[in-house]
Amino acid sequence: MRPSGRAPDQMRQLEMIPGFSAHAEGSCLVKFGRTHVLVTASVEERLPPWLRGQGKGWVTAEYGMLPRATHTRGNREAAKGKQSGRTQEIQRLIGRSLRAVTDLKLLGERQITLDCDVIQADGGTRTAAISGAWVALRLAIDGIMKANSLEIDPLKGRVAAVSCGFHNGTAVLDLDYDEDSTAETDANFVLLEGGHIAEVQATAEGAAFDEEGLLRMMRLARIGCDEIFAMQHKVTGR
Amino acid sequence: MRPSGRAPDQMRQLEMIPGFSAHAEGSCLVKFGRTHVLVTASVEERLPPWLRGQGKGWVTAEYGMLPRATHTRGNREAAKGKQSGRTQEIQRLIGRSLRAVTDLKLLGERQITLDCDVIQADGGTRTAAISGAWVALRLAIDGIMKANSLEIDPLKGRVAAVSCGFHNGTAVLDLDYDEDSTAETDANFVLLEGGHIAEVQATAEGAAFDEEGLLRMMRLARIGCDEIFAMQHKVTGR
Amino acid sequence: MRPSGRAPDQMRQLEMIPGFSAHAEGSCLVKFGRTHVLVTASVEERLPPWLRGQGKGWVTAEYGMLPRATHTRGNREAAKGKQSGRTQEIQRLIGRSLRAVTDLKLLGERQITLDCDVIQADGGTRTAAISGAWVALRLAIDGIMKANSLEIDPLKGRVAAVSCGFHNGTAVLDLDYDEDSTAETDANFVLLEGGHIAEVQATAEGAAFDEEGLLRMMRLARIGCDEIFAMQHKVTGR
Amino acid sequence: MRPSGRAPDQMRQLEMIPGFSAHAEGSCLVKFGRTHVLVTASVEERLPPWLRGQGKGWVTAEYGMLPRATHTRGNREAAKGKQSGRTQEIQRLIGRSLRAVTDLKLLGERQITLDCDVIQADGGTRTAAISGAWVALRLAIDGIMKANSLEIDPLKGRVAAVSCGFHNGTAVLDLDYDEDSTAETDANFVLLEGGHIAEVQATAEGAAFDEEGLLRMMRLARIGCDEIFAMQHKVTGR
Amino acid sequence: MRPSGRAPDQMRQLEMIPGFSAHAEGSCLVKFGRTHVLVTASVEERLPPWLRGQGKGWVTAEYGMLPRATHTRGNREAAKGKQSGRTQEIQRLIGRSLRAVTDLKLLGERQITLDCDVIQADGGTRTAAISGAWVALRLAIDGIMKANSLEIDPLKGRVAAVSCGFHNGTAVLDLDYDEDSTAETDANFVLLEGGHIAEVQATAEGAAFDEEGLLRMMRLARIGCDEIFAMQHKVTGR
Amino acid sequence: MRPSGRAPDQMRQLEMIPGFSAHAEGSCLVKFGRTHVLVTASVEERLPPWLRGQGKGWVTAEYGMLPRATHTRGNREAAKGKQSGRTQEIQRLIGRSLRAVTDLKLLGERQITLDCDVIQADGGTRTAAISGAWVALRLAIDGIMKANSLEIDPLKGRVAAVSCGFHNGTAVLDLDYDEDSTAETDANFVLLEGGHIAEVQATAEGAAFDEEGLLRMMRLARIGCDEIFAMQHKVTGR
Repeated sequence: MRPSGRAPDQMRQLEMIPGFSAHAEGSCLVKFGRTHVLVTASVEERLPPWLRGQGKGWVTAEYGMLPRATHTRGNREAAKGKQSGRTQEIQRLIGRSLRAVTDLKLLGERQITLDCDVIQADGGTRTAAISGAWVALRLAIDGIMKANSLEIDPLKGRVAAVSCGFHNGTAVLDLDYDEDSTAETDANFVLLEGGHIAEVQATAEGAAFDEEGLLRMMRLARIGCDEIFAMQHKVTGR
Repeated sequence: MRPSGRAPDQMRQLEMIPGFSAHAEGSCLVKFGRTHVLVTASVEERLPPWLRGQGKGWVTAEYGMLPRATHTRGNREAAKGKQSGRTQEIQRLIGRSLRAVTDLKLLGERQITLDCDVIQADGGTRTAAISGAWVALRLAIDGIMKANSLEIDPLKGRVAAVSCGFHNGTAVLDLDYDEDSTAETDANFVLLEGGHIAEVQATAEGAAFDEEGLLRMMRLARIGCDEIFAMQHKVTGR
Repeated sequence: MRPSGRAPDQMRQLEMIPGFSAHAEGSCLVKFGRTHVLVTASVEERLPPWLRGQGKGWVTAEYGMLPRATHTRGNREAAKGKQSGRTQEIQRLIGRSLRAVTDLKLLGERQITLDCDVIQADGGTRTAAISGAWVALRLAIDGIMKANSLEIDPLKGRVAAVSCGFHNGTAVLDLDYDEDSTAETDANFVLLEGGHIAEVQATAEGAAFDEEGLLRMMRLARIGCDEIFAMQHKVTGR
Repeated sequence: MRPSGRAPDQMRQLEMIPGFSAHAEGSCLVKFGRTHVLVTASVEERLPPWLRGQGKGWVTAEYGMLPRATHTRGNREAAKGKQSGRTQEIQRLIGRSLRAVTDLKLLGERQITLDCDVIQADGGTRTAAISGAWVALRLAIDGIMKANSLEIDPLKGRVAAVSCGFHNGTAVLDLDYDEDSTAETDANFVLLEGGHIAEVQATAEGAAFDEEGLLRMMRLARIGCDEIFAMQHKVTGR
Repeated sequence: MRPSGRAPDQMRQLEMIPGFSAHAEGSCLVKFGRTHVLVTASVEERLPPWLRGQGKGWVTAEYGMLPRATHTRGNREAAKGKQSGRTQEIQRLIGRSLRAVTDLKLLGERQITLDCDVIQADGGTRTAAISGAWVALRLAIDGIMKANSLEIDPLKGRVAAVSCGFHNGTAVLDLDYDEDSTAETDANFVLLEGGHIAEVQATAEGAAFDEEGLLRMMRLARIGCDEIFAMQHKVTGR
Repeated sequence: MRPSGRAPDQMRQLEMIPGFSAHAEGSCLVKFGRTHVLVTASVEERLPPWLRGQGKGWVTAEYGMLPRATHTRGNREAAKGKQSGRTQEIQRLIGRSLRAVTDLKLLGERQITLDCDVIQADGGTRTAAISGAWVALRLAIDGIMKANSLEIDPLKGRVAAVSCGFHNGTAVLDLDYDEDSTAETDANFVLLEGGHIAEVQATAEGAAFDEEGLLRMMRLARIGCDEIFAMQHKVTGR
């Protein structure tokens, strides 16, 4: 029995509010149950120096967590003067995941920055961020296309992410904080629509797992991502 | 005529959502029109070393802005590795303002941190933050009192803040970004219920102002703060 | 009775030594009693990148305090690796104050940096710095004009600053450290010659103050600044 | 055909020199072909404050690369003033991998730090580091046991790591730099002796991969790790 | 012929103003010609953690330069966020030099910090700092002794420093900036009264020098330090 | 009697392995007994901005120590976020020493960076680094010359360095850690072939020394450097 009473293959209540932010070219407030992440997509018509003149653009991500998004207050990274290793690891993962579905040449010499800020955390913030970032990116690119700056859509498909794990010996989908903090194994899957894998990160927290366990988690991930793909389609019409 | 069509002494639409955050001991999402600030109050039963053993507590504030809260994306302070002078100036002001209505001896040896994070900015973020921080602080202290840890209320009264300025030669209340960026004078008033002043910061951006101008802005500030005090009362019942 | 025996509207002994530094284009050692601040003005014929090509110049300020300028030694900011919030707040105020009397277009594409270093502190270091910075800036601009690089004087008038406060219930002028550390209210006024206000920052340290209190402090500030204006004129001949 | 002429399931020349460092409690110079990593294990009989008093120890890792370990010189992280996201990601992975085979309670209240410094890089530095770190850790714990400070061996088994990937459409084992920089998929496997998985990190660099691809890489990883396990046994006698 | 017209073995005008600072336990404004350094000695009755409980005290130094102490403005180290290698090298030298004449056991468990801040620079700031620091330290220790906290004088003798070099092929004493920037060799000598050497740092800037050159510079250094010792005695009476 | 049993004028076992690194343009693993330093020379055909357009090149050095190169583990400078004063002092010394034998004009507009990383430390790391850096620099410049990019050799001669000191009252050559940590005087000599001096740094750790002591150490330094010069010649053929 899961602490939340959910079935093993049941996602938390999923919600996506597109266009949440007044200023950003694309944005989405994404909720995986009590995990709430605000993603904004900012389009800049210039690239950082090391990317210029190569006839292609860039998609990157930054991640942050409000100090009291969690049960106990964490120190503000801006006040500490540096981003934690965890923060950097997550924002690198988000950026890679979205680049996996973007044709950077078609995007042209512009940069899109996906800011993923966790307003409230209850496990799975990085997977919520990736899933919502696709919506923000989709809206931002739609805007560029409407402005006639792009003819061919550089977004090749959808990407979504979800966490799976073993909790009390059972493979479960979309772990919340209670499960995550006691899970034997914690895995994050970034999947493309159609079933291909963009990234897998599976870690044994307690006992190591085997091939069979990895495959069972992957099957759950497909179920979860299908639900997310449907929601992404619903809120963007794309 | 103000860009927004408001009367000179008219506040923007004011909204306060208490208890917005699931984890914090007190919280408030405060909206001054399109300026949205999330304030959380975190209670810790221990003090930083330099405050211990003096028989009193501490109230402090931190301030941040999501990178795309503004028209164009700003660099993330955590990534830059330091907080700007503006950020530090604002969070010091918020802390002083809330301490002005808190009896630190009655609070006892505990610290309350008010995290003020700007979700969306349209001018007046610091005044919205102070006004919402009072609600978060009120709720956090109510919680401590209910838990029987405090008998006498350490919160001595309400505090609110609003900006005023001269725009096209007219004194106006609660400037939005359009006004703020072209105002001749910009002033922030932190007022106590009853009319006393906790802090005034008035700066000539273009032409210098005179005593009469300062008094006219102060009269507007009283009007605005009275409206905020009423809203604070409404959402907290205190 | 003030700790120093001064009358409520009496400044400390005021001294300004222009040209104190051998290398700077303009300089002034300013003394408000035992508060000693060395201000140098450095002229650079190039602007920081974000200011170039706009047909105007820039005036900026930096502030520092020698570690043992105070009663007990403070940590050296260079060793700590960052400037405190207080330092940044003060140097921003000094910069704004001097820009309030400078026509940046007339100055042309050059930058003048006012370094204000506190050699000895006894309260009122920021107001002494602003008052002395005007002398350093005046001398630096005189030098540019003499070198025929500027025809029209970009300095529109004088600016001076002084602190006022309520001490033992009495409004007093130019607080020294003994008064400052026990004052109920602490206010800094930056005034232009002629009486207009460039900036007011008034903070209730203990009890809040009212409009009448603010006006009484402002009247004292005018008395103090008139004395400073006279001294500025005496040492620069301008 | 692989650039190195190796068969798809062929590791590079593997070498481990235990006791390479004169001062460390355990050490190993590990070579995966031209990738050379020096790992030292430092035993400290005290824990960082946040780990004290819990009746258990800690194993942690730090990772660094000499500036000219690579084809072109990289900036020295100590000079830049911070560790890159990549560095932090890798050292977190190494630490988790070694903790997966350590019983921290049996270790007792002491900390072992594994410093992994890349002397020369040719792809696969993190997997070489993990594999060599086990040797350094084994030797350090042997030393503690010989000194009679530990009766029961806290090291539960061996751990090794190897990278796999798809290169020109073929699954290959132990990628060198030439392969790594052009691989379609890059995966790092951290395996326990016996076949269980401690960690999998698989990333699509170009085309996404499918479940079958993941399984094929995992099979190669088992082949590679078996060779590493044998070498670990040979050089430690354990 | 020296740019200043001085004889090869002639010091610049030497001046020492003891007790320059109102707050410090000991202080000295030292002038070597146009090089002006303010040294303060701060006594703290507690040691940094790593020095406690060893029955001895510590003498340390920090060095800084006002941004416009030099011909062209240098960046403020506090704003850059770190001290330069040059600054650290100099403050380490000053600390060692003063410890060379202090019996740390006799000093007892207290720390004396010598802050050396260059108000104006014209070559030789580190040697002026060392020479003036002795006066500040002497005064601070006299104060501790007068307060009956110390019976036996922990200051074992005088220390002074001066620079020598080869300029246009001639060995010269106490180089000013004009000489220093064109000297073939630059050497700093830290000498004890009586002729022993605490530290020599000699660097060939252009042509390398030989043993004879080193000895000639050392002879000049003795002449210069004798003059400084006499001045130290005159201003402290010790 | 020296702890190592060496004669006073006897160097430790000297070893230099040229071309140790696969990637660098020049490299040398240098061993002074148990002190092992890896030096790489990296050639870049571009200069830092402040050196461009002056018709000359630059030679610079960076120094680092692996955390467990020493008896007890030191904190990693990259993790601490800054290089220590000692590190900066040493790398500045190495850079100056190599520039003393390089004609920067003949080198042309390119930069050579000498990375000196201490793999194992047993005293004298900076002198080993300088001595090995000459080999790495020699090989790098030979490479540039072979590629026909340089006709005239910009390396004017050899440079080597060795430490000397007084241990138990006797002048000794090439101190190891045991001697270094108890020596009364510690001196580093950087000598040119032919006997001229590039740099001397002599510090009294305990008792001050006199002129005679300095000369005795210098004589030992000549003996040691002659041995190093011979080894440099042997391994480079130059």
